[in-house]
Amino acid sequence: MLPKIDADRLLGDLKRLRRFGAEGTGVVRPALSPIDLDARHWLVSRMAEAGLDAAIDGVGTVYGRSRKPGPALLIGSHTDTQPTGGWLDGAMGVIYGLEIARALSESGETAGLAVDVASWIDEEGTFAGYLGSRSFCGEPVDDILRQATNRAGERLDDVLKSAGLAGRPRARFEPGRHVAYLEPHIEQGGRLEAAGKSIGVVTTIVGIREMRITFTGQRNHAGTTPMAIRRDAGAALIAFVQDLDRAFRKLADADTVWTIGRIELDPGSLSVIPGKADLLLQFRDGDPARLQAMDLALADLVQVADTAGPVRVALSAFDAPVEPVGMDAKLQAEIAAAAEALAPGQWISMPSGAGHDAQVIAACMPSGMLFVPSIGGVSHDFSEDTAEAHIVLGCQVAAAAAVNILRSS
Amino acid sequence: MLPKIDADRLLGDLKRLRRFGAEGTGVVRPALSPIDLDARHWLVSRMAEAGLDAAIDGVGTVYGRSRKPGPALLIGSHTDTQPTGGWLDGAMGVIYGLEIARALSESGETAGLAVDVASWIDEEGTFAGYLGSRSFCGEPVDDILRQATNRAGERLDDVLKSAGLAGRPRARFEPGRHVAYLEPHIEQGGRLEAAGKSIGVVTTIVGIREMRITFTGQRNHAGTTPMAIRRDAGAALIAFVQDLDRAFRKLADADTVWTIGRIELDPGSLSVIPGKADLLLQFRDGDPARLQAMDLALADLVQVADTAGPVRVALSAFDAPVEPVGMDAKLQAEIAAAAEALAPGQWISMPSGAGHDAQVIAACMPSGMLFVPSIGGVSHDFSEDTAEAHIVLGCQVAAAAAVNILRSS
Repeated sequence: MLPKIDADRLLGDLKRLRRFGAEGTGVVRPALSPIDLDARHWLVSRMAEAGLDAAIDGVGTVYGRSRKPGPALLIGSHTDTQPTGGWLDGAMGVIYGLEIARALSESGETAGLAVDVASWIDEEGTFAGYLGSRSFCGEPVDDILRQATNRAGERLDDVLKSAGLAGRPRARFEPGRHVAYLEPHIEQGGRLEAAGKSIGVVTTIVGIREMRITFTGQRNHAGTTPMAIRRDAGAALIAFVQDLDRAFRKLADADTVWTIGRIELDPGSLSVIPGKADLLLQFRDGDPARLQAMDLALADLVQVADTAGPVRVALSAFDAPVEPVGMDAKLQAEIAAAAEALAPGQWISMPSGAGHDAQVIAACMPSGMLFVPSIGGVSHDFSEDTAEAHIVLGCQVAAAAAVNILRSS
Repeated sequence: MLPKIDADRLLGDLKRLRRFGAEGTGVVRPALSPIDLDARHWLVSRMAEAGLDAAIDGVGTVYGRSRKPGPALLIGSHTDTQPTGGWLDGAMGVIYGLEIARALSESGETAGLAVDVASWIDEEGTFAGYLGSRSFCGEPVDDILRQATNRAGERLDDVLKSAGLAGRPRARFEPGRHVAYLEPHIEQGGRLEAAGKSIGVVTTIVGIREMRITFTGQRNHAGTTPMAIRRDAGAALIAFVQDLDRAFRKLADADTVWTIGRIELDPGSLSVIPGKADLLLQFRDGDPARLQAMDLALADLVQVADTAGPVRVALSAFDAPVEPVGMDAKLQAEIAAAAEALAPGQWISMPSGAGHDAQVIAACMPSGMLFVPSIGGVSHDFSEDTAEAHIVLGCQVAAAAAVNILRSS
C-alpha cells in the first residue's frame, strides 16, 4: 500500500513558510537574515510536532532527527532564498521531508521507518554556498565561519553569535545511520513543461566550467582604417564564437548547454575599431568525459585563433571547475518506479542543470533527486511557481520512493 | 617654376602652434578653451605678418583675407583638437595655408595670386561639429550658438561672450571671390603608409550610417534551459553579425568599411541566458549607391531574422545619415599633377574615411583635399605624428597645386 500524504497539510505548511519574507508572490529570505531565523525557529517547532528531535545547529542548519532506531532516510533541501527568490526553490524539498516523516509515522505499516529531515543553511551562497551540507559531510568550515561576509559586509560569525547559534553542536554525518539522501526540488528549467511531464528523475548534477576569453587587437579609427589592415578584436570575437559553437555542437548531446553571458568591446565607441574584446563563457554537462572534451576543444580553438592572428586570443578560468556528480543508480530506479506507479508515463530521467546540496551530500552517502515542473521554467524570481497538483504528486512519489528505499535497505 | 616654400618656417610655425596646449607629444586644445583662444590670437598675428587681413570672427573662426584682388584660393582646416589630440590633425592644413600665402607673395611670378587662409572653429565638435565652416557657408547657426554646450556644461554663447567674440562679424562666403577650397590634412589612417606612398589625393569624403540593432529574446537560467528551447538574444546577435558580414562583403569594395563598436548583453551574467542584446553598427562608403544598397541589405537581414525567430530583431538609426561628398574632379587632377611632378609615382587617389570641413565647404565652392601619411595610421591620440619629410613634401605639393589652380581659373 502506498503511504498517504496529507495534501492540505503539505500545502498549508508551504504557504505558512512563504509568509516568512513574502513579497508579493515571491520571497526575500536570505540565509541567517532575521526573517530566515524566524522561519527556522518555526520549522524546528513543526518538526518537533512531527515527533523529530529538532534544532538549529551551530552553522544554522535545521536538523530534525527521527527517534526511530533507523537506518534512516535523510530528506532535505534548503529554506534560504535568493535575494529576490521564489517560494518553492528549496522550501518545497524541506516541507516534503517534514510531510513524509509525518505521513510514514501515521500509518501502521510504515510507522517504524525512520526519516530525518534537514534544511541546510545557505545553499544560495549569501555567505558561503552549500555551507550546511558541507559542514554536515565533514568539510572543514571553520575558516569560512571566520572569513565569510554577505553583500552588506556582515560577518558570518557575528551573525551566528547574534542569533545565539555560535558554539552550538553541528549536525554531522553519522556513519551507518543513513541509507540515502533524497532531495526533492523544483526543476528550475522548462524541460518537464515542454515535454508535458510531471516528474523528473535526476541522473546527474552537471559540472560547470566558467572561462574568460580575451581578444587583443589594435584600436583604430573606424573610418580611415581599411578592412584589410584591421586588427579588430570584436570581429575576431564574433568569428571565434562561430567556431566555438560549431565545435561544441559536435561534442554536445541534448543536455549539454553553453552560454556566452557577457561580451565587452573596448573602448565601446561607434567610431573606434575595438582594440580589446572579452567574453565570459559558461558550459555545463553531466558527463565528465564530455566536459573534458569541451575543455580540450576550447583550448585548441583558442590556440589556433591566437596563432592564426591577426588578433591575439587568450583563455583563462573565470572560476574553479565544478565536476559533475552522478546520482545513485539504485535511488534513481526507486524514484522512477514510484513515479511510474503513481503517474505512469508521466516521468523522465534528466540531468540537473543547476547545483544542489545533493551534489555535496553525495560525497558521504548515496544521493538522489526528484524534480517537479517549474511553470514557464522560471526560478530565482518572484514569479517562480509550480501547479499545486504537481506539488502534491511530487510529494506522493517521494513518499512512495522513501518507503521502498527504506524497506529495500 | 615651382613655388618655393620655406620648410624651416613651416615646421617652426607648426611646432610653435603645438606649444599651445602641448601635453607630451600631444595637444589638448579643445575649441574656445583659453589655450585655443591664445592660439587663435597668435595665428591672427602670424597671418597679419604674412600680409593677410586677419581676425577671429563672431563664432571663433580665424580668417585671413588676402589683400590681393582675387579671385582667391581658400586654404584651411582647423586648429582645435580632440580632448586628447595630436599636434597635426587640422593644424597642419592651416599652417600650410599660411606658408603658401607667404611663399606665393615672396616670389615675383606668384606675388599677384590671392590666397585666403581659414582655421574653422570647432571641427572636432566640442560644442558643435564643423561650426565655423557651416557658418561660413551660410547655414543658420544662431540656434546652435544659443543652445550648444560642451561636456563641462559651458554654454557656447557664454564662452564667445567671455572671449570678447560675441557680436563680431562672421566670416561669410563671398560669391565670386573664390575659385576653390583646398584642405590639406593628415590621413588619419594607415593606407598611405601600408602602400608606401607619400601623398593621397582625396576622391570623396565618405558617407556614414550609424545604426542600433536590438535583439529581444527570453532571459533564462543558463544551467537548466536546454539549447533547443532557448531564446538567447546574444546567440542571435552573433548569428546576425555573421550574416551581416557576408552580405556587406558582397557589396563592398576595398574602401568600404563597417564596424561593430559596441555589444551589450543583458543582464551580462555568466549564469543567465541574455534576454536582450544590443549592437552599434557604423558603416562608411564614398558611393551613395553603395550606401543605399547596404541600407537595404541591412534592413532586409533584420526583417528576415526577426521573422525567422525565435528572437525578435529591430533596427533603428543611432544618428542621422551623412551622405558622401565628392571632391571636385578638376581639383583632384590639379593636386595629382602637382604630386606627380614633385613625387612621381608616390601618390594615390583615395577616399577620406573621416569627416572634414571640406565636406561642408563643398556646398558653396569646388573643394579638394590632399593627405600626407600618418605614422602607424594613428590620429586622435597623443602619439599622432607624420615624418617631417612628408610634412614638407605635402606643403610643396599643395603650393604647386595652388598656383596651378589659381592660374587656370
